Amino acid sequence: MSYYTPSNGYPSNPPGGYSPNLSRYPSSRPRPHTHQHGPPAGSDPQLWQWFCAVDTDRSGALSVTELQDALVNGNWTKFDLDTVKMLMNIFDTDRSGTIGFNEFAGLWKYIAEWQRVFKHFDRDHSGSIEGRELAEALRSFGYNLSPPLLQALEIRYASGAPSAYGPPPGITFDRFVRACVTVKTLTETFQRADQDNDGWIQLNYEDFLKISLNAP
Amino acid sequence: MSYYTPSNGYPSNPPGGYSPNLSRYPSSRPRPHTHQHGPPAGSDPQLWQWFCAVDTDRSGALSVTELQDALVNGNWTKFDLDTVKMLMNIFDTDRSGTIGFNEFAGLWKYIAEWQRVFKHFDRDHSGSIEGRELAEALRSFGYNLSPPLLQALEIRYASGAPSAYGPPPGITFDRFVRACVTVKTLTETFQRADQDNDGWIQLNYEDFLKISLNAP
Repeated sequence: MSYYTPSNGYPSNPPGGYSPNLSRYPSSRPRPHTHQHGPPAGSDPQLWQWFCAVDTDRSGALSVTELQDALVNGNWTKFDLDTVKMLMNIFDTDRSGTIGFNEFAGLWKYIAEWQRVFKHFDRDHSGSIEGRELAEALRSFGYNLSPPLLQALEIRYASGAPSAYGPPPGITFDRFVRACVTVKTLTETFQRADQDNDGWIQLNYEDFLKISLNAP
Repeated sequence: MSYYTPSNGYPSNPPGGYSPNLSRYPSSRPRPHTHQHGPPAGSDPQLWQWFCAVDTDRSGALSVTELQDALVNGNWTKFDLDTVKMLMNIFDTDRSGTIGFNEFAGLWKYIAEWQRVFKHFDRDHSGSIEGRELAEALRSFGYNLSPPLLQALEIRYASGAPSAYGPPPGITFDRFVRACVTVKTLTETFQRADQDNDGWIQLNYEDFLKISLNAP
C-alpha cells in the first residue's frame, strides 16, 4: 500500500472549481443501467452513478480496460496503461485484479486530489506541467532534486520526444502523477536501504533490478 | 545509441512468413501522396511508401504522434507512448525530435527483427508473451534471471493488472521489446558500475535516481 499524500506545499484550497474528468457520462446525462448489486448502505449516490457508468460490462467491478477507457487527461488523451496499473496496485487492496466500489471511492478521491495539485502547479494553465512547474511541485513535496535529475524526469515523463531544438514537451496529468509517485517510491527505497544514513547504498544485481522494476 | 542486437538464441530463420504490422495502409492499397521530397537515391521504394503513409502531415519527418498512430501490436492495441519514445531515443540520431527517412529505415528493420523474435518465443501462438516464454527469451539472450525477478518483470510489463486468482496477463509485442531492452540496459549499467567485478555496486541518491529514470 503506497497511498501518496502530498505533504507541505499541498494546496488545500486551490483557486477555481474542480471538475473531475473521469467519465464520458457526466451527471447531467445519467446513463441508464441495470446494475445487479446496489450501492453499499450510506455510500455517495453520485459516486455510485460514476462507478456504474465506468463498469461498462456490468460485472460489478472495474477492469484495467474499463478504467483506462474512462480515465482521460485534460487534453482527452487516455491515461497510460502503466498509470492505470499503478492506480490498481494502490487501490486493488483485495488483489482481485479489479476495482470494486469501495476501492473505487479511494481511487476517485486520490485522482481528485492530484487534479487539484496539477491545476495548482500548472501556473501558465497550459494543461501540462513543464520543467519549472515540475521542479516547484516536487520542491513543495520536500524533494530538492538537482537540475540534471529534474531534466531526466522531465524527459522521461514528457508526452513527446526530446528535441535538440527546444524544450521537452510538457507532462500530461497522468504522467505527472506517475513522475511524483516514482520520485517518492525511489526516495523511500533509497532511505530504507541506506541504514547507516551515510548517503550511499550497496546493491547486488538482484536487488538493483528488483528496485528498478518495482518503481511505478 | 543503444541498438539492441539479440545474440545467441536469436532465430535467424523463423518458421512462417513475416508480415510487418506497421501501417494501416498495406502495400496492396498504396495511398496517394504528394510528398515534396523524393526518396534518397538507392533507397527501397517500398520502405519510402511506408514512410510516406505514416507521415500523415507530409512534413518529411515522423513525429511521436505519427509513429504512435502507425505502430500497432498483434491485437491492434497501439504501442505505448513510452515504447515510441524509447524507439525515438534509439533511432533519432540527429536529435531532431522526429524520425527522418534514413532513421526510419533503421527503426523499421529493428521492429521487424523484434517481431521475428516475438513470434519465435510466443510458443503457444497466443499473440502475447507469458512468464515461461519471457524466461526462455531472456535466457536465450544470456540473462539468467531469478524467479522473483522474472515475476517482477512479468507483472510490470503485462498488459493488465495482476490478480491473486490467476497468472498475470500476457505481454504484448511493444511491451515485450521494452522489457528486454530494460533488462539489457540495467544489466549493462550494473556491470559498468561494478568496476571491481565483485557483484556489488555503491550508489548515492543522485546516481540511484538517475539510473532508474534513464532506464526505458
